[in-house]
Amino acid sequence: MPRFKATLAYDGTAYLGFQRQNDVPTIQGALEQAIARITGQKVTVVAAGRTDTGVHAVGQVIAFDADWSHSEADLLRAINAVLPDDIALQDLSQQPGFHPRYNVISRRYEYTVLHAQQRQPLWRGRVWWIPRSLDLDAMQTAAALLIGEHDFATFGTPPKGTNTVRRLFVSEWTAQSAADGLFLTYAVEGTAFLHHMVRRIVGMLVEVGQHYTSIEDFEAAFRAADLTQAGTVAPPQGLVLQAVRYSTHNALYHFDHENLTD
Amino acid sequence: MPRFKATLAYDGTAYLGFQRQNDVPTIQGALEQAIARITGQKVTVVAAGRTDTGVHAVGQVIAFDADWSHSEADLLRAINAVLPDDIALQDLSQQPGFHPRYNVISRRYEYTVLHAQQRQPLWRGRVWWIPRSLDLDAMQTAAALLIGEHDFATFGTPPKGTNTVRRLFVSEWTAQSAADGLFLTYAVEGTAFLHHMVRRIVGMLVEVGQHYTSIEDFEAAFRAADLTQAGTVAPPQGLVLQAVRYSTHNALYHFDHENLTD
Repeated sequence: MPRFKATLAYDGTAYLGFQRQNDVPTIQGALEQAIARITGQKVTVVAAGRTDTGVHAVGQVIAFDADWSHSEADLLRAINAVLPDDIALQDLSQQPGFHPRYNVISRRYEYTVLHAQQRQPLWRGRVWWIPRSLDLDAMQTAAALLIGEHDFATFGTPPKGTNTVRRLFVSEWTAQSAADGLFLTYAVEGTAFLHHMVRRIVGMLVEVGQHYTSIEDFEAAFRAADLTQAGTVAPPQGLVLQAVRYSTHNALYHFDHENLTD
Repeated sequence: MPRFKATLAYDGTAYLGFQRQNDVPTIQGALEQAIARITGQKVTVVAAGRTDTGVHAVGQVIAFDADWSHSEADLLRAINAVLPDDIALQDLSQQPGFHPRYNVISRRYEYTVLHAQQRQPLWRGRVWWIPRSLDLDAMQTAAALLIGEHDFATFGTPPKGTNTVRRLFVSEWTAQSAADGLFLTYAVEGTAFLHHMVRRIVGMLVEVGQHYTSIEDFEAAFRAADLTQAGTVAPPQGLVLQAVRYSTHNALYHFDHENLTD
């Protein structure tokens, strides 16, 4: 049965995360329902990263197996036509043997903090609103400490059977001033992430920005590699899964897993 | 009775415009209800610009009369605490004699078009999504023709008793590329606008960007000062009332209208 790879964007506000659960709205559930409606087949969708409740994506990557006798463009158009307006495929192509969680070079997330005196209605569900001013230089210095290969145990728990060592390529803040406030966006890119890792990092970096935690205390907590040293977990709505990059070396695809399993 | 001036931000998606109507949700209705709940008084809110269904604001300016024995900051905080999460006051101060539609130096609107191949769920309700590519240079050239004092009859009808001559200070596009597409924002600033004027201008500028209308035809339609020459009206969700600027010369305030009337 042909395997399809697709890029997916969604507003996670109305969903209890990516992963299918009975009787509650999930991204996976909505997607499988839409694909089933178009193809007439019961499909299982596998994703590169299972985002939490309220977390968004512009570049989630998924795969599913389905028979389809028309073009890729027709399938993309048909699925998007029946998906709810807070979920949309961005591209779709046939990719034999592709699995969204194998051969990942990097995953990129962005987390946006909005510093504004008052609530910003147009950004609700999209940013972490922080009325108190933040020391961006301190946040930048602390963020830079995370680049490279480290034990990130302070910032999260690993999936069963893996350790807490991860490698980050990018860990930096950018600031953009607008009429509605100062947007501070933390971009982080790495091969893989621990559970809640980005939100725990952002939570603690914001504590640094508020001078509630010093850069030295941040570094000590990080080096301790101990989850009990963690600070605040940033709320979900500021987080967006931006992109997942794969080795383009097709020979690396696992042609042995004929059945797409999660 | 003290008069308060306030700046208001809202996501207009869920409202049938600013102006109060019976039995439907409006920004004015929600605001008057919140203020009444806090002050215990039946108030009338007057706004600088009555935005349409689905149109947003980050810098709408309003005024209302109410007795309040605590501080301005307390009143702001109390009203924001009871307003729905898609409406929020940005500031509030006592301003004797202030009327939101008098002594206006300029109103600034921004309209955002998102050029992206597919639907962008995180931007629904906020932009006009246009999959087809746009000629930004042509749109910029056409937009620049509108700067200055002109008869804008092609782009809208005037409020009763006024003519269609208006002066624009700013009329320009800026582009910003992001992971989710190319954001093209049209900023327009002038003393006052005709009904639907910004959306009619944007609609026709987009036709120019799609080479559906030439710059010459755009200019001829504009110079004709004739509403029958108008093109598409851009959809409401891309439009945001950004700011209203006032003469700071307090002597200009109309102290004669003791009662705040609309």
